[in-house]
Amino acid sequence: MSAQVISTDEAIRDVETYMAGLGQAARQAAAAMRRASSGAKNAALLAIAARLEAQRKAIAAANAEDMARGRDGGLDAALLDRLELTAPRIDAMIEGLHQVAALPDPVGEIDGLRYRPSGIQVGQMRVPLGVIGIIYESRPNVTVEAASLCLKSGNAAILRGGSEARASNAAIAACIRDGLADAGLPEGAVQVVATTDRAAVGRLIAMPEYVDVIIPRGGKSLIERISREARVPVIKHLDGVCHVYVDATADLDKAFAIAVNAKTHRYGTCNTMETLLVDAPVAEHLLPRLAAAYAEHGVELRGCERTRAILPEAAVASEADWGTEYLAPVLAVRVVEGIEAAIEHIERHGSHHTDAIVTDDYGLARRFLAEVDSSSVMVNASTRFADGFEYGLGAEIGISTDKLHARGPVGLEGLTTRKYVVLGDGQIRQ
Amino acid sequence: MSAQVISTDEAIRDVETYMAGLGQAARQAAAAMRRASSGAKNAALLAIAARLEAQRKAIAAANAEDMARGRDGGLDAALLDRLELTAPRIDAMIEGLHQVAALPDPVGEIDGLRYRPSGIQVGQMRVPLGVIGIIYESRPNVTVEAASLCLKSGNAAILRGGSEARASNAAIAACIRDGLADAGLPEGAVQVVATTDRAAVGRLIAMPEYVDVIIPRGGKSLIERISREARVPVIKHLDGVCHVYVDATADLDKAFAIAVNAKTHRYGTCNTMETLLVDAPVAEHLLPRLAAAYAEHGVELRGCERTRAILPEAAVASEADWGTEYLAPVLAVRVVEGIEAAIEHIERHGSHHTDAIVTDDYGLARRFLAEVDSSSVMVNASTRFADGFEYGLGAEIGISTDKLHARGPVGLEGLTTRKYVVLGDGQIRQ
Repeated sequence: MSAQVISTDEAIRDVETYMAGLGQAARQAAAAMRRASSGAKNAALLAIAARLEAQRKAIAAANAEDMARGRDGGLDAALLDRLELTAPRIDAMIEGLHQVAALPDPVGEIDGLRYRPSGIQVGQMRVPLGVIGIIYESRPNVTVEAASLCLKSGNAAILRGGSEARASNAAIAACIRDGLADAGLPEGAVQVVATTDRAAVGRLIAMPEYVDVIIPRGGKSLIERISREARVPVIKHLDGVCHVYVDATADLDKAFAIAVNAKTHRYGTCNTMETLLVDAPVAEHLLPRLAAAYAEHGVELRGCERTRAILPEAAVASEADWGTEYLAPVLAVRVVEGIEAAIEHIERHGSHHTDAIVTDDYGLARRFLAEVDSSSVMVNASTRFADGFEYGLGAEIGISTDKLHARGPVGLEGLTTRKYVVLGDGQIRQ
Repeated sequence: MSAQVISTDEAIRDVETYMAGLGQAARQAAAAMRRASSGAKNAALLAIAARLEAQRKAIAAANAEDMARGRDGGLDAALLDRLELTAPRIDAMIEGLHQVAALPDPVGEIDGLRYRPSGIQVGQMRVPLGVIGIIYESRPNVTVEAASLCLKSGNAAILRGGSEARASNAAIAACIRDGLADAGLPEGAVQVVATTDRAAVGRLIAMPEYVDVIIPRGGKSLIERISREARVPVIKHLDGVCHVYVDATADLDKAFAIAVNAKTHRYGTCNTMETLLVDAPVAEHLLPRLAAAYAEHGVELRGCERTRAILPEAAVASEADWGTEYLAPVLAVRVVEGIEAAIEHIERHGSHHTDAIVTDDYGLARRFLAEVDSSSVMVNASTRFADGFEYGLGAEIGISTDKLHARGPVGLEGLTTRKYVVLGDGQIRQ
């Protein structure tokens, strides 16, 4: 492990100066990263993987320290679970680095290079964003994930993890630093904020001279606060209030399978269905069958009046239920009159994350795809597919609920931008 | 012209309620615009053109009113020129509408639809952003330009022009409203703010519930203020401190032509060269020839020490000159040692707008393209080509100096975003 001393809170009394130092180093490293070859970037990813492999014991020890502190501090079980770096999780971090190394390099790709009447050739080249600040919570494996994606996309990164994970993150940061050095890339390319002082976050999001974009990962309140206070652009994920609409024209076996999967495959994910909309003509046939399946999974149902006429066991859905991301085995159910009412419900109550229609009608499928204004719109598939890996991005830094720049699952491409390239032969403007 | 009464300041006492009303109408119209067919959008563009043609007299009269008020109010000659709607300018507005109607519709295009191992097909569909707020200054023809681009890209627009142009904008707004109605599109699709109260701008940029993005067009101080205060994303243009670097490997005749054109073709445009960088080995040969040409055009030179050793008539360039967008017949000139020093100068002092190298060396050309972090990078072409029309975008709402979302000239594509579409056949996540 690096001989370099890992900074501690005691050593970082002046957070503003410390963060400006990270910013300057990142800005400088970004220029080198912009130039870095695919080979050098891949070498760094594999070197970091090798360092993690070599430092398994040190990482486990650091993580044990965080876990002990967390237990003493009364962290709840869910948080402790996220904090823990088990051997399979360390394996997964190492495997993830290999996977990102194997992805094609997005940087430098030139699209649409065409001759113009003036004789110049114009196209767009994909280039790194520059410096990316990532703010996340307790999971220390995010440190490796975020570093690998920023690195591969030619960016410099400043990572600010949760204070619960400080020892784990410091141990991982040392591996990243050493791996970068092994590959001849600047250590400033990935920096992990070494102070747990919350003022560091405030600085990170307010240094437009050093940081080009902020990606917060975590709970909604964290993200809302960061978006409100940031003085640089933010790529963010807010709610996932996802819908499945079963049209009367649906194959009801497929509808059944999708509605069960979209709700019960996992409860805590943003692409889980939170509201089921059922077209009136098939409600009486489909809902009892679904209710039995949901009961087996222990899913609580909250229905509209018409739903409750069919399923008296369902609780009454209040107006608030339609806009709630339960992240739990709870499902709101509404009987609607056709696609028009379904789209209206989705547009009014949804969060524009992921919405699906089940139908065998060509025109309705096209209409749903065109008219539902969500980051993912689906026909005859489970909302649970809204995911960077399932979409073939190879890796994912998160799912954006923004409209600008990146929308939906964000992979390497979302961490880049495009500049115009013009190739001439001495042309001047007439 | 519409029988509808054009709102006046007197009628709009409560700006907050008024702006919220515009926002609600725009949000509603955006849903209809998202669904509008290419045919309906083109019909609206042509109907607006026809209305403008029919209302030439009313528009000229309204503009004469603005001009008279402007003269009485002591507007300077440049502002009055921008404010004036001459017959050729009205022709150009009408012609512009026809051109935008003839462009391909960007909405609905699906890219990269591919099968995934799970059996789903995933692609990305281009869709409107939603509601776009555009804030501009005295030129009333921007009202038509902005409306046409927003309309074609399936967005709703709220336009806030300069108070100097209020009568002209109201007359144009009536034509737009009537043209939309002729084509069966909602009048809320393009709304022109009818109050000159400055509080209206403050509201427009702070209604994320109604407005998805703000595009300010105007002077730097306006744009900086809006960016600072906006609570919605802003697509903006700041400085254009553009460079031409003439390498020792350049064809010096081409270098001469490009350096003259990039400076003297127009002085007030953002893609005009403001600093010329000359590689030391060719400085003595090239600079005197260029100086003679610049002198003919009345361009004032401000040089570094080495430049002044060759051109004693040049003034002394201060440190501030390297970062100044003159927008005037003034040029900063610096002799540098090779591409490394040139890139360093550009990265340190430039504004990341448009920068060009003149060289016949393949490796240096590639290096400049890759390493210069500007919205347009050019080899052997005049910086004056950085323009939506020259690039083949068909039309341009402005040139973005942002990195995220849209960078460089922004055409219809920059007014859209992409959502993921998933086509399945009953697939569920395993």
